[in-house]
Amino acid sequence: MDRKKNISMAVIKRIPKYYRYLKELAENDVDRISSNELSEKIGFTASQIRQDLNCFGDFGQQGYGYNVKELLAQISSILGLDKEYNTIIIGAGNIGQAIANYTYFQRMSFDLKAIFDINPKLIGLRIRDVSIEDIDNLESFIKNNEVDIAIICVPKERAQGVCDIITSSGIKAIWNFAPVDLKVPNDVIVENVHLSESLMTLSYLLNESKITE
Amino acid sequence: MDRKKNISMAVIKRIPKYYRYLKELAENDVDRISSNELSEKIGFTASQIRQDLNCFGDFGQQGYGYNVKELLAQISSILGLDKEYNTIIIGAGNIGQAIANYTYFQRMSFDLKAIFDINPKLIGLRIRDVSIEDIDNLESFIKNNEVDIAIICVPKERAQGVCDIITSSGIKAIWNFAPVDLKVPNDVIVENVHLSESLMTLSYLLNESKITE
Repeated sequence: MDRKKNISMAVIKRIPKYYRYLKELAENDVDRISSNELSEKIGFTASQIRQDLNCFGDFGQQGYGYNVKELLAQISSILGLDKEYNTIIIGAGNIGQAIANYTYFQRMSFDLKAIFDINPKLIGLRIRDVSIEDIDNLESFIKNNEVDIAIICVPKERAQGVCDIITSSGIKAIWNFAPVDLKVPNDVIVENVHLSESLMTLSYLLNESKITE
Repeated sequence: MDRKKNISMAVIKRIPKYYRYLKELAENDVDRISSNELSEKIGFTASQIRQDLNCFGDFGQQGYGYNVKELLAQISSILGLDKEYNTIIIGAGNIGQAIANYTYFQRMSFDLKAIFDINPKLIGLRIRDVSIEDIDNLESFIKNNEVDIAIICVPKERAQGVCDIITSSGIKAIWNFAPVDLKVPNDVIVENVHLSESLMTLSYLLNESKITE
């Protein structure tokens, strides 16, 4: 595949949305779709769609449109969804438990291997088939198992400490739910889900719309 | 306050981050900070910071920097955090329960008034002090109570239906956790938290970094 480098973060952030819409089309047995039809569904312009997909290779055919299943397969591969990822969750509080219980991720090839917590009351319990282990075992677990992604769900005060342990143990990808900006080595990827910032954006927009009414 | 209009979404998305850092500074009794010092902490350039804050008014003083408490108060007000918001959660599954249990939002002036679910086993239970009610009562609850923000945590198949009910009952702001793009009237604000898209972005970046290694 002619995959081009230096793809902007803006494009990268749109790709999962293509995946979501194409998956729905495939589930509804749609065989092919033009960039105009896709545009109507997804809300990006047709030219935006053609440009985005061009970043990743030569999809689509003039006058025919996109073959849905083929494009879906290629976008899955671009997103790395054709592989399996071993994940661990650190922090079995509200968010950690919700993520652990969310079977959608499991179906999407993210395989939860262990959950870690500091709370003795939680250690030994199981969420689905996965046991909650003592956070003291975190380092040795990472060293003895192949872990691709660590999901940080600890309170903000503990997040950087946990981050230091896991990155020095070899973790290269972090999905971070703690409301802090983690300091990581250059070769470690962090994707943040900052819920409180999202909620503040909403309250900002709500107020702004009232002011301009 | 000289608040300017047409502020870009990129700026708006950065404001909660300023709030988070300024709050930490205030909690650590820091009285004032220069844009250069703030830049080191927050990771935006000093000129970016000055430019961002200028969108909202005339903060800071040449040679003195920003008065932390004053700037924090003004940013709180810009974000609408000096007001109270009545919220409801629709969907008491994993994510809905996690949000309901997350007391941080309560402290941040988002007041959870009710939770709705379709599952008879959940109806009547309480999360913290808030009871889970029958989703059949959703419409009348919104009409009889002042609800500012609805938090949608139902499965994707039900999300648009719930959205239609709440917007036609008068809801103007939605925090949406369902993995769909909701269709709403023009005067309704939607802020999405698409967890699976975030996870896909991470797996994309992880693969990209392996490819370019």
